[in-house]
Amino acid sequence: MVQKTPATIVVFGASGDLTSRKLVPALFDNYCKGRLHEQTRIVGVSRTEMTDQEYRDKLYNAAAETLGKTCSLDCWKEFASRIHYCSGDVSAAGDYQKLEDRLQELEGSTANGRLYYLALAPQLYEPLIEQLGAAGMADESKSWRRIVFEKPFGHNLETAQRLNARIHSAFSESQVFRIDHYLGKETVQNLLVLRFANSIFEPIWNRNYIDHVQITMAETTLVGSRGGYYDRAGILRDMFQNHMFQILSLIAMEPPSRYSATALHNEKVKVLHAIRPPKPEQIAMYSVLGQYQDYHSEQGVSADSITPTFAAVRFDIDNWRWQGVPFFLRSGKGMPGKTTEAIIQFRCPPHMIFDSPDDPSSSCNQLLITIQPDEGIHITFHTKVPDSGMAMRQSKLYFHYRDSYPINAIPDAYERLLLDALNGDSSLFIREDEIELAWKLIDPVIAGWANRGEKPYAYAKGTWGPAEADTLIKCAGRNWVNGASFDHD
Amino acid sequence: MVQKTPATIVVFGASGDLTSRKLVPALFDNYCKGRLHEQTRIVGVSRTEMTDQEYRDKLYNAAAETLGKTCSLDCWKEFASRIHYCSGDVSAAGDYQKLEDRLQELEGSTANGRLYYLALAPQLYEPLIEQLGAAGMADESKSWRRIVFEKPFGHNLETAQRLNARIHSAFSESQVFRIDHYLGKETVQNLLVLRFANSIFEPIWNRNYIDHVQITMAETTLVGSRGGYYDRAGILRDMFQNHMFQILSLIAMEPPSRYSATALHNEKVKVLHAIRPPKPEQIAMYSVLGQYQDYHSEQGVSADSITPTFAAVRFDIDNWRWQGVPFFLRSGKGMPGKTTEAIIQFRCPPHMIFDSPDDPSSSCNQLLITIQPDEGIHITFHTKVPDSGMAMRQSKLYFHYRDSYPINAIPDAYERLLLDALNGDSSLFIREDEIELAWKLIDPVIAGWANRGEKPYAYAKGTWGPAEADTLIKCAGRNWVNGASFDHD
Repeated sequence: MVQKTPATIVVFGASGDLTSRKLVPALFDNYCKGRLHEQTRIVGVSRTEMTDQEYRDKLYNAAAETLGKTCSLDCWKEFASRIHYCSGDVSAAGDYQKLEDRLQELEGSTANGRLYYLALAPQLYEPLIEQLGAAGMADESKSWRRIVFEKPFGHNLETAQRLNARIHSAFSESQVFRIDHYLGKETVQNLLVLRFANSIFEPIWNRNYIDHVQITMAETTLVGSRGGYYDRAGILRDMFQNHMFQILSLIAMEPPSRYSATALHNEKVKVLHAIRPPKPEQIAMYSVLGQYQDYHSEQGVSADSITPTFAAVRFDIDNWRWQGVPFFLRSGKGMPGKTTEAIIQFRCPPHMIFDSPDDPSSSCNQLLITIQPDEGIHITFHTKVPDSGMAMRQSKLYFHYRDSYPINAIPDAYERLLLDALNGDSSLFIREDEIELAWKLIDPVIAGWANRGEKPYAYAKGTWGPAEADTLIKCAGRNWVNGASFDHD
Repeated sequence: MVQKTPATIVVFGASGDLTSRKLVPALFDNYCKGRLHEQTRIVGVSRTEMTDQEYRDKLYNAAAETLGKTCSLDCWKEFASRIHYCSGDVSAAGDYQKLEDRLQELEGSTANGRLYYLALAPQLYEPLIEQLGAAGMADESKSWRRIVFEKPFGHNLETAQRLNARIHSAFSESQVFRIDHYLGKETVQNLLVLRFANSIFEPIWNRNYIDHVQITMAETTLVGSRGGYYDRAGILRDMFQNHMFQILSLIAMEPPSRYSATALHNEKVKVLHAIRPPKPEQIAMYSVLGQYQDYHSEQGVSADSITPTFAAVRFDIDNWRWQGVPFFLRSGKGMPGKTTEAIIQFRCPPHMIFDSPDDPSSSCNQLLITIQPDEGIHITFHTKVPDSGMAMRQSKLYFHYRDSYPINAIPDAYERLLLDALNGDSSLFIREDEIELAWKLIDPVIAGWANRGEKPYAYAKGTWGPAEADTLIKCAGRNWVNGASFDHD
């Protein structure tokens, strides 16, 4: 897996956190592994005046801790010689010609591709696209031009549709790469391998054998310095619309006919289409919003904020595979542990010939997929307790990446995603229709709560959210499995 | 799980190896765990004259190494006070009255049950049964009378049928306990729990998803001091007719309606009935016999012996679940490792969307059930190799008893089986029809080779048998998995 054609990577928002903490380290790791084309360069763009060398030093200082996790820092100097800087204001039309001139100067006569990476505030997306278009910088007659967007991609369906329309006034969809860094994670990709490169899971991966699915994304952290952004977004926009639905899609989708961007996107879109949009009268029963105590006193948060920092939502998928199998999704800040995990809860054996354990329903087979921090798979199953009549006990079959690979073998998500974008492979990016369909499912929940005029339920930090979230799943005859991935030492 | 009614355990062959190495230690462990009824006693019977105390000392000395593995030796004295001895010749009619008198004297007025344990040479079975019958010692009018047989149970179908007929002239089938100590092993019992207390295996446990099944019982040891017996028996009688078919039955049987002796036996018999008896013209294609080099020079072995010490046999099961799924069974002495294991080889995914590994067919999902020495379960499946495009690698999900339970938590097979026999539970014993059906499947193989006049193929000690055994499975498009259980550290 190497970069196939030379490219100039133009990073807008060159002095921001994302650039120094994620993008540059990921590109550096790719460089050290010999995966970047030798004629590839990086051009940072932001308002501050800086020389190339000043920018290189700034990046080095900002990233020193992150850099070289998997590679020696020895080759930084060599790598840094490919980094350039061009000051410019993304809202000033004149600066685009200056940038284009600088790029042409650097590129010389080579037909370099270009990757425009938007590492800046979302309100700058639209003017930037417009200017890139106007300056002819999206034009692919010489070589490819691609553009990468970070979340949030819109604030709701309407704004997402408008943004997509704007993009398409300058770029065709094949040029657009919407990042969801969860798709760059190994375990998320492993979900595809688990399901489609093994023959033992797919036959039982349906309503005949699965009782329900739980997806939990829990953070221990609070909003921290992101209070201003977060208070406008909330957990549903920040986590559900993107990461949660991506994981749900990969769990629920039909096998694609082949591993290609179009085939994958088509299958994910099919699942999102099949999810029953919550009806207004169901909102109260199928969703619970929560807000951790003292959220109001966070910096940048309004005193009467009703922004949720926790949500639990039930979704149902109306298709042949999943009819009757509820998907319970929850995510929150200030949880007791950091974890992203999916639980496939299988139905119980139809008939027990042995003396049953105390609560047979709670102990039926489970497949736990832990996405972070400890990437792996557990299968919970029953074994006989030795030296007993026929007593049974829950046992676990374990697989953990960290047991099979050295810890730094697992690359950061951005490393993979940047390389894919440079190669024009959008398999692990989000297509416009996916984005819009996800908003179609999230908007009604947000609107439902706004219309009911109810505030999110308060919950204490360090708990699994408000008690009402337990009621939600209990009403459906199930229970949350809390911290399932914590018990492996 | 405790003994419910008091009993006298009468061991014929009281000074033999089995008694001191297996039966007494197993009874002692049961005693230490408080599972034996307080009025239970053991009466050893053999020809030598001994006092009770002499017999107790003899047992203690013989068993010192084995005894107390799970229990302290402190209670040996207390336990030993329940051991008695009665000299007698099992072929002398007069000695039975003497034994009965002694038993009545010990039992006093209590209505003790009696467990007759035949720990002696099989040629003594028939006279002993006859005498027990003639002496009224099988009569259950006062309390229960049960009789336990060790293998070999007959030498072929004819002798097994005759033995069963003899037994039934004195004992009804419900009084008869034919031991296969493999059924006392935890992992063998766990096979039932694995299959029927979990919902994820049963849906894929059939011809739609399973390609074939391999059962391997390998011993590193040679015939040793058992040459005389072994040369008359051979591997097919010694291992296939009993242990191999028991494991095959538990893997292949339909779910019983409940966990009871009758329900289990009925299902096992159904499977044995469904196995296609090898036709004479198929013997050469479906079976390979081997004999390790220099077998002739073993003590007790005849110079021109054609007794097999290795066999590989293919069986097919003609029913809805297993049609088209061959079962490959092999067992041998002088193998590279000691293992009893079953491999459920699943079919490959019907369609691979990823770039396939070198030899996809050899790397499809496997369930490995290791019965000894390291009792556990492995599932082989594919995971994504981190930091690669979509390359895959075989990984393993592990469960091992020794990781979950202290090493001495796993009792010896006899401990469980003796207790079951004392409680009249024949679930883990072999019913007469099972025995006879197994012979019906083994006899044609033995006869086929005898009729062809071919000698077993020679194989070097420390190998997995003759090359012809590889050909047998390769002709069916499969490969033996050698030492699958050895790679877990």
